[in-house]
Parts: sequence; C-alpha cells; structure tokens
Amino acid sequence: MQVHDMPALAGLRVDGARLWNSLMELARIGATEKGGVCRLALTQLDKQGRDLFIAWAKDIGCTVRVDAIGNIFARRAGTRDDLRPVMTGSHIDTQPTGGKFDGNYGVLAGLEVLHTLNDNNVRTAAPLEVAVWTNEEGSRFVPVMMGSGVFAGAFTLDHALAQKDREGVSVRDALAAIGYAGEGVVAHDVGAYFEAHIEQGPVLEANDKVIGVVQAALGQRWYDVTIEGMEAHAGPTPMELRRDALLVAADLIREVNRIALAHAPHGRGTVGWVDVHPNSRNVIPGRVKLTVDLRAADDATLLAMDRALREACEQAGLPVKVDEVVYFAPQPFEASLVASVRESAHALGLTSMDIVSGAGHDAVYLARVAPAAMIFVPCKDGISHNEIEDARADHLEAGCNVLLQAMLRAANASEGEAA
Amino acid sequence: MQVHDMPALAGLRVDGARLWNSLMELARIGATEKGGVCRLALTQLDKQGRDLFIAWAKDIGCTVRVDAIGNIFARRAGTRDDLRPVMTGSHIDTQPTGGKFDGNYGVLAGLEVLHTLNDNNVRTAAPLEVAVWTNEEGSRFVPVMMGSGVFAGAFTLDHALAQKDREGVSVRDALAAIGYAGEGVVAHDVGAYFEAHIEQGPVLEANDKVIGVVQAALGQRWYDVTIEGMEAHAGPTPMELRRDALLVAADLIREVNRIALAHAPHGRGTVGWVDVHPNSRNVIPGRVKLTVDLRAADDATLLAMDRALREACEQAGLPVKVDEVVYFAPQPFEASLVASVRESAHALGLTSMDIVSGAGHDAVYLARVAPAAMIFVPCKDGISHNEIEDARADHLEAGCNVLLQAMLRAANASEGEAA
Repeated sequence: MQVHDMPALAGLRVDGARLWNSLMELARIGATEKGGVCRLALTQLDKQGRDLFIAWAKDIGCTVRVDAIGNIFARRAGTRDDLRPVMTGSHIDTQPTGGKFDGNYGVLAGLEVLHTLNDNNVRTAAPLEVAVWTNEEGSRFVPVMMGSGVFAGAFTLDHALAQKDREGVSVRDALAAIGYAGEGVVAHDVGAYFEAHIEQGPVLEANDKVIGVVQAALGQRWYDVTIEGMEAHAGPTPMELRRDALLVAADLIREVNRIALAHAPHGRGTVGWVDVHPNSRNVIPGRVKLTVDLRAADDATLLAMDRALREACEQAGLPVKVDEVVYFAPQPFEASLVASVRESAHALGLTSMDIVSGAGHDAVYLARVAPAAMIFVPCKDGISHNEIEDARADHLEAGCNVLLQAMLRAANASEGEAA
Repeated sequence: MQVHDMPALAGLRVDGARLWNSLMELARIGATEKGGVCRLALTQLDKQGRDLFIAWAKDIGCTVRVDAIGNIFARRAGTRDDLRPVMTGSHIDTQPTGGKFDGNYGVLAGLEVLHTLNDNNVRTAAPLEVAVWTNEEGSRFVPVMMGSGVFAGAFTLDHALAQKDREGVSVRDALAAIGYAGEGVVAHDVGAYFEAHIEQGPVLEANDKVIGVVQAALGQRWYDVTIEGMEAHAGPTPMELRRDALLVAADLIREVNRIALAHAPHGRGTVGWVDVHPNSRNVIPGRVKLTVDLRAADDATLLAMDRALREACEQAGLPVKVDEVVYFAPQPFEASLVASVRESAHALGLTSMDIVSGAGHDAVYLARVAPAAMIFVPCKDGISHNEIEDARADHLEAGCNVLLQAMLRAANASEGEAA
C-alpha cells in the first residue's frame, strides 16, 4: 500500500493492546512501589530504557542514530529519502515520583505507528522518525527540555553538556557513562513534528472529550517577589502601627488570581511558593517572599498581565521587589498540522476539542524550527508528575490512531517537497 | 521617716544612674556580641544572674527565700510584719537573642526602690518583696511564665518540674543542678503586686508618653488552621478548575485583619506562620496550614472575634479545619492600683497614657491571686525579644520612680489590713 491510497490508509488502526503492553514493560524500569516510575535522565535506569527502545526500534527495521546531546532518532525509510522526515517523539526520563505515561506515551505511540505501518505493508513517501529527547523533565539537570532545546538552538550544546547535577556530575560525563554520547546535533531538517502526550491537566476529562487538539503552548513569565515589612510582636503591636508583610502578600496572591481571571480564557496566574520570615505564631511577619507564575496564549496578553502585576506591587503599601526570572514566549502550533489533527480525530469518530498546552513540552522547542503540533489524551483527574498518574488504554489507543493518521497525511503532503 | 509622712515620701526619688549601672552589670552575664543577652532559664548563666541578685539583695539588708519552682523572694521587713507584703518583680531569664531590659528592668527597679528607701531611712508598714520569677520566657522550657504560673495555681508544681528541654533535661534536674531547688510554693499572700516593664510595643513612643498605665492584659485565642485544596500543575490547570488552598489562605489572612479592625481599639489579629504544600513554584498549592492569633481586652469581644473567624472558615469555599490550641482569658488589673500608678505618674509630672498589655507577663498570673498592676516605659522602636532592644535611662528612672510611689501608697494603704 502506498501513501496515495488514502481511503485504505484511513482504515488503518494501531494495536491498542500492543501499545499498552509496551508502556507497561517500559514502566518496569525504575518502577516504584506506589505504581509510578523513577527513571531520572542519564542514569543507569535511563540507559536501560533507552536500550529497550532501541531494541524495539531495530526489531521493526529502523535505523538508529544518537546525537551529541543523547537524543535518539529511530528512522523508517520512505520511498523518497530526499524528503524531509515526518517526526514524532517525546521523552522517557521521568520525575523522581513520576508516572508511567508522561513522555513515554509519545515515544511508544510513535513506535506503535511504525509497527502498524509494517503490519500493513504501508510505505510512506517521506521517511518517518521517532525521537527520544534527552532530559525533558529537568529533575536531575537543568535546563528542562534539554535535548529538544539543543536541537532547536534554544541554547548551545556546550552549555547543556556543562550542566551538573547535585552531586557535581556533568551532562557530558553522565552521557559518556551510559554510552549515549553520540556525534553531531541538529543537522537534519524536519518536515513535520507531532507529539502525542497525556494532557497533564483536567480539561479533557471535565469536558468529556477524548482528543485535545493543541493550538498553542502558553507563554510563561515567572517572578520572585519580596515584600519588606516590619517584624514585631503580635501582642503589643496595635493594628494601626503594623507593617505586616504577610497581609500585603495575601493581597498580592488574590491579585494574581484576579489578573489571570481578567485575561480569560487562557490567562493563568499562580503563587505556588511562599516563604514567611520569621514564621513564628506570635510575630508579625517582617518579610515575605513568594513566586508568581503568569501564563497566556499570546505575548500581548502576557505583557498586559505583567504590567498589572507590577502595578499591584507598586500600590501594595509596603516596599515590594519584583524580579522576573523566567520568560518563555507563547508558541502557536502550525495551523495546517493542527487542522490535520482535528480532521483525523473527526474522521476516526472521536470526540475532540481545541485546547492549549499550559506546560512545556519538547514540541514547543521543535515548533521553533519545524511545523509542529500536539495531540492530547485525558489523564485521570488531570494528575501528572505523580506516581498515581493514570490514563485509559482506549484513550491512549485513540490518540495513537490520531497520530497515525496525522503522520500519514503529513508524509503524503510533503511528497512534492524535497528536503 | 515613716509611711505616714506622705508629703515627704512624695519627694523621694530613685537613683537613676545606680539603676542603669545595675542593669548594665547584670547584662554582662550572657552578653552577646551584638549587645544583647542570652541567659536561658536554669542554665549556669541564669545561676550567675540569680547569685548576683541575691548578693545585691543581701547587701541592702533583705532576707532571701527560694521556693520549690526556683522563684526568689527578697524581703525587706515592714514595721508590721503581720501585714501582707507589697510585692514587685519580674524575671531575669532571656530569649536566646534577648535584650538587656525585658524582665531585668522590673527586678532591678524593685531592688532600686528598696535601696532608695534605705538611703532615706524610710520604713514601710507592710513588708516589701522583690520577686524573681523562674522561666518567664519559655524559650528552654514550656509553659512560659512558669514560676508565676505555679505561684498562681495556673498549673501544678509537679507538672512544671516534669517539663523537659530539647536535650531531655527536666526542670527538676535543672533547678537542682544550679542549686535553686527550694522548698514550698505559693504559701504567702500578697497585698499588692506591681511590675515595671518595658512596653515591648510601639504605642508609648508613637504617642510620646513616658509612662504606660496598664489597664489590662489582652485575652488570647490561638488557632491552627488547615485548608485542603487540590495540588495540580500551574500550567495545564485552567483557573476555573482549580482548588487553590493558598488563595483561600490569602482571603483568611485578610479576614483575620478585618476581624481585628472591626473590634477596635484593642482587638488584634495576626497570622504569623504559614506552611504551603508542596511549596513549588509551578504547582497550585494543595494544602496550606496557618496559625491565627486573636487578642482582645474582654471575653465578649474575644468570643465575637472567634465566631467571626469560624464563620469565615466555614464560608471559605474549600474545607477548612480550625483547631483552637491556646486560650488565655483577658486579665483586668486592679482598678485601685491602676489608679495609683496613674496618680503617681501625674504627681511626678510625667506624661502618661492608659494602655493595654498585648503580651503575657508574670503580673498577669499574679493578678489571679492578688491585686496587681503594671507600669510600662517606652522601648526604642517598640522592639523587644531582640539583641537590639533598647530603652532610655531617663525613662527607666521615671518608671522606677512611679513604682516607688505606687509601692509606698500600697504599703501605706494596706496598713490597716492584716495578712
């Protein structure tokens, strides 16, 4: 069967049981007692996971290449290898108390797509690739999304290789220790990039939809805020003579929420971390530090939120210091690929909805250098980065079928376009 | 000179320089580099301070008795030893980073009063006593105000003796180790009790007054509050699907402030301690614990504040657990003694104002078993429990003169009243 025979290709379906079994088998490496996975980047457990992926990729006839930051690319030849590859992928490193699905699903869904094409003797025009990106989680080494970040030129290879974990081990040495220090980085152009992922949020479940058609990744601005008041005894200090830093902090926490609500539907604002000094029951807090995390789907909104936050801090009644510590630009996904995901879901008879990605993903960096899109499936109660992270086998299968169809469309569409 | 010669007695003045020098000499025991004092209860340094007090008391002809909880009573005989003693005192233990004046001033002002009477050959009808109460601060052993608490029957001697510090040393053993385990407790009635103390707050300074006429000690209700939300990722979780425990905490912090302001002038409300879980920059807080400290001058007000707090917690929008952990009843001081303090200040030409004590003092327990009153003098910037605690020599002298006059009036007034 060739890519041209679209009606026949539209009938192709992945093997949901095989996908599920591969997820469960990979989850054994670093399995935790509570049913989660602890497989930190570039550890011996990560090596075992990578080895398993490569063994599976070779079993289904792929060629495998590892680049200098340890990204793995399993390639299935097309009929026209002059075309740029249609790529999918994600990561297999986890949080210390991570789950079975975050990242792993995107990688193994990619392998399942290739497997399905083999089973049905389908050849695509463009080559297909499944990528395993190094250190997406950032639990052991920062920055997060390291492999895709280097691939997309967000930071340099040398910068990434020089980063060290808490024991002082560098990325360079950790890659060498597990035998995953390859050669070259970036190098190859990508015709289209898809990433299937559990939503890691509650939206699909709340709306009873199976497929999330991801339109964009939210931009992020993170801040460190310090409020200076005057430490004093709670007993002898009347209300009118206080300079209570926590009271101002409370108002800012509420204000961050107001700012987010004022920028619906995609504005988000969170205070997640608070440090109170001296943090004693009968002492009026003299200093409070807190973090602010603002997110929005476009830069104009994010900037308006930034201004509202700074204005609130200026009018807080006590001296407030605001330091911006992180900025990620909002990243829209490629309209034609997003439409293809939506149409694939529709053609498969699956319920779907447009959604944004509030979190970072390798696809966000890939979108800087290639047309990219993401496919979300629900996870139980929206919980991720947790050992109790869970997802339904039928949802994972459905997302994988959407990935299959979207990749086939892209591999067909790209036929006329030489690399 | 006898107590009856009131016009002559009204001209008596303490020796401010001698008082100041005694404060500075006692402050050398446990002196810190930053100019403060660290003399924890029942340590070897506390023993040195006690030994010095007793030496000074004997120098001026006092008899000295130590009771079973280590309280020291230096007694100056009256012309009629059948009368109940007029007592003053405070404590000489300090916070780990304490100052030179908290407690020490009340004890040494008492000795200075006796010294002044000796210098002027004044004999009083009732005996006078200066008490050094054990472990007022509660830094090493809890409960706080231990010596005066046992004296007033707030808790039993056995309970106090059984308490242990962080190293497992009991009060009983610590008293024995420094040779201050005396015999008997309470036993003697008190005709009147006065305590001179630095304000430990900013009210006198803000109002430019030298003498605080303390009408009452605020009652206190302390609470542990726990707010249960849902921990979730800040990125993928839209505002409308959140259960943010910190947002509810922020509203409660503001509400505690509102409750206090609604119960002016003496209502006080403080959140001093906050614990956020998991306290991570990009995670919506799933659980927040905080403390609430409510104070008021009368029980009806304190109860109204308690009800307002509980109502706010019930209407908070997330489950909130409220545990009351401490209750101290409001403690009015004896009207006639308070008036005597006010009149003494006036007669001395000192500026004064009525004030409440927001903090606990030994006098608060004494007021349960004897007529009692307090005299406050300003401390710099209202700062106490700090090595930079400071007070002016002329203010300390002024407060000591008020103490002298008030004690003389009481020792005269009590003449007709046998013990």
